[in-house]
Amino acid sequence: MESFVLSEWLQQHFDPAGDSPAYQRLYALISRAILEGRMAAGARLPSTRDLAADLRIARNTVLQVYDQLTEEGYVHAGVGRGTYVQDISQDLVEAPVAPEDAREEQAPHGAGRDAHLSRRGSRLLAHLGFSNRQSGAFMPGIPDVREFPLKTWARIQNRQWREGPWDLMRYAPAGGYGPLRQALSDYLGSVRSVRSTAAQVVMTTGIHQAIDVTVRLLCDPGDTVWIEEPAYWGVRNLLASAGLKLVPIRVDDEGLWPGEAERAQPPRLIVVAPSHQYPLGMVMSLARRRMLLDYARQVSCWILEDDYDSEFRYGSRPLPSLQGMDEDGRVLYAGSFSKTLCPGLRVGFLVVPEALSGAFANAVAELYREGNMMLHSVLAEFIREDHLSSHIRRVRRRYAERRACLIDGIRRHFGDTLEIVGDAAGLHLVLALPEGVDDVLVERDALQQGVVTRALSTYYMDRTHARPGLLLGYAGATPEEIRPAFDALARVIRRYV
Amino acid sequence: MESFVLSEWLQQHFDPAGDSPAYQRLYALISRAILEGRMAAGARLPSTRDLAADLRIARNTVLQVYDQLTEEGYVHAGVGRGTYVQDISQDLVEAPVAPEDAREEQAPHGAGRDAHLSRRGSRLLAHLGFSNRQSGAFMPGIPDVREFPLKTWARIQNRQWREGPWDLMRYAPAGGYGPLRQALSDYLGSVRSVRSTAAQVVMTTGIHQAIDVTVRLLCDPGDTVWIEEPAYWGVRNLLASAGLKLVPIRVDDEGLWPGEAERAQPPRLIVVAPSHQYPLGMVMSLARRRMLLDYARQVSCWILEDDYDSEFRYGSRPLPSLQGMDEDGRVLYAGSFSKTLCPGLRVGFLVVPEALSGAFANAVAELYREGNMMLHSVLAEFIREDHLSSHIRRVRRRYAERRACLIDGIRRHFGDTLEIVGDAAGLHLVLALPEGVDDVLVERDALQQGVVTRALSTYYMDRTHARPGLLLGYAGATPEEIRPAFDALARVIRRYV
Repeated sequence: MESFVLSEWLQQHFDPAGDSPAYQRLYALISRAILEGRMAAGARLPSTRDLAADLRIARNTVLQVYDQLTEEGYVHAGVGRGTYVQDISQDLVEAPVAPEDAREEQAPHGAGRDAHLSRRGSRLLAHLGFSNRQSGAFMPGIPDVREFPLKTWARIQNRQWREGPWDLMRYAPAGGYGPLRQALSDYLGSVRSVRSTAAQVVMTTGIHQAIDVTVRLLCDPGDTVWIEEPAYWGVRNLLASAGLKLVPIRVDDEGLWPGEAERAQPPRLIVVAPSHQYPLGMVMSLARRRMLLDYARQVSCWILEDDYDSEFRYGSRPLPSLQGMDEDGRVLYAGSFSKTLCPGLRVGFLVVPEALSGAFANAVAELYREGNMMLHSVLAEFIREDHLSSHIRRVRRRYAERRACLIDGIRRHFGDTLEIVGDAAGLHLVLALPEGVDDVLVERDALQQGVVTRALSTYYMDRTHARPGLLLGYAGATPEEIRPAFDALARVIRRYV
Repeated sequence: MESFVLSEWLQQHFDPAGDSPAYQRLYALISRAILEGRMAAGARLPSTRDLAADLRIARNTVLQVYDQLTEEGYVHAGVGRGTYVQDISQDLVEAPVAPEDAREEQAPHGAGRDAHLSRRGSRLLAHLGFSNRQSGAFMPGIPDVREFPLKTWARIQNRQWREGPWDLMRYAPAGGYGPLRQALSDYLGSVRSVRSTAAQVVMTTGIHQAIDVTVRLLCDPGDTVWIEEPAYWGVRNLLASAGLKLVPIRVDDEGLWPGEAERAQPPRLIVVAPSHQYPLGMVMSLARRRMLLDYARQVSCWILEDDYDSEFRYGSRPLPSLQGMDEDGRVLYAGSFSKTLCPGLRVGFLVVPEALSGAFANAVAELYREGNMMLHSVLAEFIREDHLSSHIRRVRRRYAERRACLIDGIRRHFGDTLEIVGDAAGLHLVLALPEGVDDVLVERDALQQGVVTRALSTYYMDRTHARPGLLLGYAGATPEEIRPAFDALARVIRRYV
């Protein structure tokens, strides 16, 4: 590692005649070098003047890249003394209290078959995760759709419709619209250290479809799947309704932590959100990631990495994807534009191991007969013209302010008596409540005051060991909306604590 | 029936102050009266002058409605002597040769589980129906996307984007975008005699999703499903991959015809295309429809009516939907805009019995988390402003010309020696080949000449009893494209007949 010299490596890898702007390519190379651990924490970057000279590019380009790397936490500036690599192995998360034991499987059981519905249909409907409430304080998991870059989008869209884009009106080819798969492969490589060719990127309509096709192609009914405890209901419900045996695995402050007994019974699939555990918000440590990848290789199981909102990290360190560390082709990486742009787009993607790329492309075409290429071609242009990155930077600043506003409210009302769980990241935080409080009652009372929250305990398969708390989404509400909403919520909470 | 007097009934039901144009409402009422059998074949309609006076509307409005009814085959004009109801019970289809016996189930069996894929995944991929070829002569099932009403669509779309439609950027509410469900309920009631409230209309992305949610909600793995023999591969593959036991039921010239032995073992679900059997193209007779509905009521099974292209009928009689005859809430009606507008839209719908409407709306939301309301709101306007009906009228004329051009080619080359199977309807016809010809070889040889066809035998689960023939799609190609393509195809066919 010590022999690594950034400017030499860049001179080897930086292509002065590339297609994309020099700025983008340089940013991608340096961020990847840091994420992949090529530069140790504290290592000094070359001066902007030297690097510009070495690469024969404008110094302004280098300055712009260093600024973005600083803003995103890859590097920090020592006053007057240059730019240094941030310690990205340092663990900044506050530890949530994890359930003490691993849980036995406790799949939902619906009522028996009635005259109308199938057993699996009844079971599905008995555990709905879907809600028609999708905005306001404090609905979690929802971005502010009012920030959607309407004008830019409409401009690209109009350009396209004028051209009579007949071929875009057919069914999508297997795997999806080619230029979008290429744009995503490039983009994810640059910002998430995902290693892929365009052929490995398979377009989906979101995480739900990604899970559906994954379990159909890789799991048979009765197969075991590990999920995090706690986890997102929607994923749990989908997996259960596909006839799989769910085994909840506890998380601690380093992420998923299967016990000996669990490891002795290998699953077929592990579903995990290593970059930002949902809902607790911690990051999976490097050691735990290595453990997980080693285990998957040993027992030949698959890992589905749900990277649902890792674009939003506020000052804390950036994180490489698990997929980028995978040397054995065991990780499937799933993401979407639901958080970064808006949920209504219904555009998501899976990056699958090379050996599976043909199977997934064909299966998506066969199962869903997708289309929507008019939309996909707008999105491809939007990414290629770098609007996505700048949109994310813009809303990230906005959401950071909203998070600060919510924390300010919590501190004003409760000082340090209530713990805020999770990393400074994502679109929500978890406000822990004292042991013994029934968070479902708090959620219900708050709703009567017009304030939407989600009880933390409902995210556990085994609620008897659940920690009480409230998920508070802050991204979808302005500070002006957050303040009175939290005042009202605080009055409710005081009845219980 | 004899006591029915149209003008009196219209005076009771026609609302002079309705929201939609008088023309549309009058058309809807009269076509429904004919479809529902209120007016017997041969009955005379009131004169346009009298009816206009009775309803206090412009005579031009009545004339316009009578013209459309004539064009669509509901009525015919007796020269100088008024307008008469067409005999819609008359069977105009040419009888295809049906397989002689009912078939035993013969579900596809893939290779065993390999290191990568699940058993059901391998099975799915072993029987792909999907094709990347989607245009030209003679790809079946494909409309001409070049006819898409781009300007009208773009105008409505631009209007909407200007308004900052934030609420449309979220996930869709359970069941889908309300105004589109209402517009569809009205539209389907008028053109397909579907009886529904907006709450019974559940938006899907197409027939594939409609089948997926139906079998998840109504069938458990191992349940029996009746499908037509022959039938569309895609449906068969989806049902098999959902773990269902498929029983192919022969069709004769009146449609689905289950034998005694089959009726003795009731299925959980029957999937059928009564308006236009795929691929053979016959229409299910009224007697057979009554039989099917009675049977479903007796054994408490469900019927999924796939109404995939019934908008395209060329001069032959119009048909009510099976759903409109269902008094017991056993029929689910599925349709889409893939044939009427373009496949890439990915907008379809299910009309479900009232008792199931909540379950289906919730299940779609839970399973797929749909959105795309920006698109749905454009479509709702497009339907409400009557652009859909006029678009269908326009392309129907075009496809009728293309069908005539193809038939002309067949007659020029082969006279009457090769039979054309199926009703004058839809987007393709079936050219029967003599018994003993291997139609898969003909398909392969034609493809080498750049002509896409589909061998009829591949649509049978039990190919040993399949009739040889070729599916020839004519909608996606102009007469200028059809003529040389058929000349090339005829040279190939001559090698075999």
